Amino acid sequence: VTDRPIRILGIPGSLRQHSYNRGLIRAAQDVAPEGVEVELYLLHDIPFFNGDVEDIGDPDAVVRFKEAIREADGLLIATPQYNRSIPGVLKNAIDWASRPPRGSALDGKPTAVFGASPGATGTARAQSQLRQAFVFTSTPRCPPRNPGLPRRREVRRNRPPHAREDAGVRREASDGAGGVDAEAGGWLAANRERHDSGVERRGAAP
Amino acid sequence: VTDRPIRILGIPGSLRQHSYNRGLIRAAQDVAPEGVEVELYLLHDIPFFNGDVEDIGDPDAVVRFKEAIREADGLLIATPQYNRSIPGVLKNAIDWASRPPRGSALDGKPTAVFGASPGATGTARAQSQLRQAFVFTSTPRCPPRNPGLPRRREVRRNRPPHAREDAGVRREASDGAGGVDAEAGGWLAANRERHDSGVERRGAAP
Repeated sequence: VTDRPIRILGIPGSLRQHSYNRGLIRAAQDVAPEGVEVELYLLHDIPFFNGDVEDIGDPDAVVRFKEAIREADGLLIATPQYNRSIPGVLKNAIDWASRPPRGSALDGKPTAVFGASPGATGTARAQSQLRQAFVFTSTPRCPPRNPGLPRRREVRRNRPPHAREDAGVRREASDGAGGVDAEAGGWLAANRERHDSGVERRGAAP
Repeated sequence: VTDRPIRILGIPGSLRQHSYNRGLIRAAQDVAPEGVEVELYLLHDIPFFNGDVEDIGDPDAVVRFKEAIREADGLLIATPQYNRSIPGVLKNAIDWASRPPRGSALDGKPTAVFGASPGATGTARAQSQLRQAFVFTSTPRCPPRNPGLPRRREVRRNRPPHAREDAGVRREASDGAGGVDAEAGGWLAANRERHDSGVERRGAAP
């Protein structure tokens, strides 16, 4: 057990500047408890996965992304839901991070998933698909149930996207993120202890 | 009913040059029955979905993609499966094509899904997620069941990607694609008749 802060990599699954889900990560930064730091990580520079490119070598942006995941104690992913599933933007980043299959940056990395959407089912299906993917990548999911972020009913699909984030969304996000964060904080601390023990078991002297 | 050929837009969900799924589309071209043309459509130039970009206007590659879908009688999508779900590359293209939600290029467009993968479950989960997305986009799915392409057991994950396509894969793909194509051909023809009737019903003089 160390005194250094728990470092969480916060990844919004949308590229939109004023996206709800980037707002969720910022809200998590606002409400992070003492000893927890949340870094906002944007996916704009990650290219499309292409096995031919991977054969030559990971592009710089992918190298940086994998390093950022490895250096974090855990991930906090805020996913939108497009067409009842994970946005391609987010899934593509996970496809890169999952490679190579054994010992990938996602292997064993504690990860919490939440999300916000004006849609009728929120982001439940996208979260569910992410959790299925993370079973495949041996990524521990936290918390085990879907966090129940309130849906913002008064937001309408046909309002311009830049009008969609406002103090209300930010406040709801804070409430939701605070709940996740408080729950995840203890879980991550416990997980890190287990992880540290594992490192010791594999021979690293204390 | 017209005499023009049925035009199918064949979309592989992988960017890899020698991908199985590009091979599937080529196989579908090889075995397309009389009166059916399959055009190979690659996703390399489609950018990441970003609501801010969409607000300014669809990028040229997205305009071309939507036009190609609208001009086709149906889609034939060959999907890989990454981490138990749809590849980000393919999902991203669908996210663009699904916009705007009402009257999108995918609305009412007959679409067949198949895929090939060396993985233990093949592409069943990715296909299933695609079908769920296509329920949301009002895209008729054809055929209603998952086509059972044989899994190529002798292909190993750790073989270099460029070694993965060979005559054997091509032959299996042809067998599978032929089955889908034959089944889809009649279905598409029937669907086009229904579609043409619909156009007449909405007032276009014959």
